[in-house]
Amino acid sequence: MVVKVYGPAYASPKRVLVCLIEKQVEFETVDVDLFKGEHKEPEFLKLQPFGVLPVIQDGDYTLYESRAIIRYYAEKYRDQGTELLGKTIEERGLVEQWLEVEAYNFQPPIYKLVENILFAPILGVPSDAKAVQESDEKIAKVLDIYEERLSKAKYLAGDFFSLADLSHLAFGHYLVNQTGRGNLVRERKHVSAWWDDISNRPSWKKVLDQHKYPV
Amino acid sequence: MVVKVYGPAYASPKRVLVCLIEKQVEFETVDVDLFKGEHKEPEFLKLQPFGVLPVIQDGDYTLYESRAIIRYYAEKYRDQGTELLGKTIEERGLVEQWLEVEAYNFQPPIYKLVENILFAPILGVPSDAKAVQESDEKIAKVLDIYEERLSKAKYLAGDFFSLADLSHLAFGHYLVNQTGRGNLVRERKHVSAWWDDISNRPSWKKVLDQHKYPV
Repeated sequence: MVVKVYGPAYASPKRVLVCLIEKQVEFETVDVDLFKGEHKEPEFLKLQPFGVLPVIQDGDYTLYESRAIIRYYAEKYRDQGTELLGKTIEERGLVEQWLEVEAYNFQPPIYKLVENILFAPILGVPSDAKAVQESDEKIAKVLDIYEERLSKAKYLAGDFFSLADLSHLAFGHYLVNQTGRGNLVRERKHVSAWWDDISNRPSWKKVLDQHKYPV
Repeated sequence: MVVKVYGPAYASPKRVLVCLIEKQVEFETVDVDLFKGEHKEPEFLKLQPFGVLPVIQDGDYTLYESRAIIRYYAEKYRDQGTELLGKTIEERGLVEQWLEVEAYNFQPPIYKLVENILFAPILGVPSDAKAVQESDEKIAKVLDIYEERLSKAKYLAGDFFSLADLSHLAFGHYLVNQTGRGNLVRERKHVSAWWDDISNRPSWKKVLDQHKYPV
């Protein structure tokens, strides 16, 4: 049974792709064009009623929300590929903590940058300079906390690569490579080393190689 | 060893309290007064560098982010108290999916209502009528999707109570009881029955009885 992943061009679905590669799970992808509104069509809404990406189908099992999907596969294939949840319940607790930090503190301001710097020109809408400035300030503060954390442990949840780190790749890529904010990472020694480490994993390179970002 | 939970008066820490009661885990609480800025003091920031509630201490183990904490205790005490993660990996996947839906779709618009309707008068700042209206519209759309889901299963992740339902209590209470939006729940038959079911659990009544909301 091959897992179907919808929307591989976009950032959040890439969180799923890199996880499946780390877990050595075979998958195929189904394109969904957000710019054509395909995520709001009735057929898609049957799979994902909120009309957002990604969603997966694995036989008759359907699941959405990228961070739920990566937890599911990390658990289902615990003994296959890279261990992504830590070895103990306490390690997993920290993996969960940093997954939440990524979701509430890291991704949202980067998403604002992507909207205003990359998407606004394509959609022909004005960019909100205030939102960009506020996002830059938020990201700097968040990365200061990461710098402190990563001065004490090689990865976010401890001295092991986990879902917590992996979950940063999709929007970290936007930050470093597509919104011209690489300096926010490079100015912080431990964040910079951590980013080099995780973004050079063969799994992530394979995702980037096979599924271009739309912008 | 008794678990210490910081900030029991506020909504997100209540997510932790109700989980600990369901799992029959003994705990004590430590007050943190947000209106006095105690969450931004150096001692607190050592525990929670982002300066938000809750955080727990369990011996020398410190953990923050309420949904990470409830996952940790649901896993650690799997065989004690109420099973909150489902029985199979597939059930847990759906628990995770609906936990994410709660975090990104349910809580944020209710939080906006709380800020503008309950907190603004106390802080002496103007309420944003447009934000209130947008939030009402968002909540109505989200609850339409819940209504459809709950017409097919008794609880969000299936026919079993789980972390996904439990996680809705803290902000659901604000919606129904403190922002005058009970109608949004009552107008939807299955959502209304689900809310009555989960909000009448003895664990949640105990939380409300012992730890009043600040507003």
